[in-house]
Amino acid sequence: MRSVEETLGELGEFAVIEAVTARLRQGPQVLLGPGDDAAVLAAPDRRVVASTDLLVEGRHFRREWSTGYQVGRKAAAANLADIAAMGARPTALLVGVGAPASLPVRWVLDLADGLRDESEPVGASVIGGDVVGADTVTIAVTALGDPAGREPVTRSGARPGDVVALAGRVGWSAAGLALLTHASGGDLGEVAESPLIRAHLQPEPPYPAGPVAAEHGATAMIDVSDGLVQDLGHLAAASRVAIDVDPAALELTPLLAAAARCGVDPYDWVLAGGEDHALAATFPSDAGLPPGWRRIGRVLAGGGVTVGGRPYRGAGGWAHFGGDPPVP
Amino acid sequence: MRSVEETLGELGEFAVIEAVTARLRQGPQVLLGPGDDAAVLAAPDRRVVASTDLLVEGRHFRREWSTGYQVGRKAAAANLADIAAMGARPTALLVGVGAPASLPVRWVLDLADGLRDESEPVGASVIGGDVVGADTVTIAVTALGDPAGREPVTRSGARPGDVVALAGRVGWSAAGLALLTHASGGDLGEVAESPLIRAHLQPEPPYPAGPVAAEHGATAMIDVSDGLVQDLGHLAAASRVAIDVDPAALELTPLLAAAARCGVDPYDWVLAGGEDHALAATFPSDAGLPPGWRRIGRVLAGGGVTVGGRPYRGAGGWAHFGGDPPVP
Repeated sequence: MRSVEETLGELGEFAVIEAVTARLRQGPQVLLGPGDDAAVLAAPDRRVVASTDLLVEGRHFRREWSTGYQVGRKAAAANLADIAAMGARPTALLVGVGAPASLPVRWVLDLADGLRDESEPVGASVIGGDVVGADTVTIAVTALGDPAGREPVTRSGARPGDVVALAGRVGWSAAGLALLTHASGGDLGEVAESPLIRAHLQPEPPYPAGPVAAEHGATAMIDVSDGLVQDLGHLAAASRVAIDVDPAALELTPLLAAAARCGVDPYDWVLAGGEDHALAATFPSDAGLPPGWRRIGRVLAGGGVTVGGRPYRGAGGWAHFGGDPPVP
Repeated sequence: MRSVEETLGELGEFAVIEAVTARLRQGPQVLLGPGDDAAVLAAPDRRVVASTDLLVEGRHFRREWSTGYQVGRKAAAANLADIAAMGARPTALLVGVGAPASLPVRWVLDLADGLRDESEPVGASVIGGDVVGADTVTIAVTALGDPAGREPVTRSGARPGDVVALAGRVGWSAAGLALLTHASGGDLGEVAESPLIRAHLQPEPPYPAGPVAAEHGATAMIDVSDGLVQDLGHLAAASRVAIDVDPAALELTPLLAAAARCGVDPYDWVLAGGEDHALAATFPSDAGLPPGWRRIGRVLAGGGVTVGGRPYRGAGGWAHFGGDPPVP
């Protein structure tokens, strides 16, 4: 028995893949799991929903802040939320890992556990992957999903008169990141156990709200990954409508203490903070909102996103090639 | 109109994605293409085949040797070959790109063209992707496929008495790499236009041979990506059989001049060279081989791979975390 205290280089590619695979469990939708040239997945609906994301150390996570387990959960969450945002049920993940030979095997096993533990409760399995050498830890996740007989909900179906609704939290991850950054090099003190920091390190997307919204006639839906105003902007542009967000409908209370500590306007976190993977959707005004969804605004004729009738000129969401490194 | 002479950082993430998407074409199997939270793909067989690979600059390709176009074709080929090796028809790619802000937009557009041009002839479309900042150019490709009513061919069905057969070339890519390395810093001279170098920069997997083999009752199949002996070893282990390769059945002629130039035993290239993405399969001995396949050995009781009845002690295929950087 080799030790998990070994590095990837000492253990070798195939043994690493074997050790990772041994920690995974395959659900009944998996017809052939990891270990062959490709996996085989059931697609009972005759359609499959697919999305992919790349996470890079130093930009999307830091190993000094996040455990491998947390990175695994976060990487899975970002992709599973994309599937939920189509109104579909996640069924599978494929995960490519690039890592230096010096990385402890333990970190990769923790990553696999995190991917597994985020996926299993929603019915998805890690069905395949790749492990290669790289100078920087890099994680590529592809998520697959089953529309389960429902029409996938795109970004482009919102109509003037629709209600804009939100499921899940916004601003928590940005607040957690601000607490971490604010304390950088120093002591986190009493905020070390803050649910905001936990929300940054391990987001909790409201997965079931996606299929529920599709079931209840959502006209458009999007995963809020880059910031509420920015992502509603994508939805508005795709639907060729305007959206007005009601600031009074946004929940600030959990953020107020952290905002005071960091000297930040909590609206910047709520309106522009990314990575919580809330879901935003539009519903016909007369439909009533399904459980888990709350009204945060309305769809109007025109274009762009306003907050309380005014343009939002705050932090503005993420820019992946912006001047300052955006994250973390 | 912005110029493609710009860098990724100047153009910005969303404009880059838009420019890439504009160059892609979506086949009839794509129900919803790029631009939403996820794509939607037809899966008429109620099953989907899925595989993923990560390619890292300096390890899987070099920008001074390969154009973006060639990297795109090679990245697509590696994944499409995995789908073919299941006997399935490739239908879609999802591609994550990590790149420094200083990378010219042109390189990424060339990459997209290469991905498209490798995929379209086999009926696959690039249906989704992600572009993020990274210090090293990193390309994550996930390929999806349709079994098209056939049972996927795994690595584990070979039986003693089966014929081992090969479709496509082996050793060409390794020979091309050796020519490039041999000439490193110097002039490639008359070998600059060598088909071996082309084979290294842009492999040509025998895609149709995969479904054809499944149709003709192949009992096991594998994509030869790491080296013939090593990959046959994976097939033999999964099937719990032994394989003996007939060295006289392997085609050396196209490699002889390059082998002499580099002072290499051409059998090392043929038996241990990776990245050609040939397909190796086993067929019941009485079945006769389908077009495109040639006999290279036989399946025996036992375990392991021999060449002409003897253990092969040559270069041994790739090791992704080995002592020396394995590639290129």
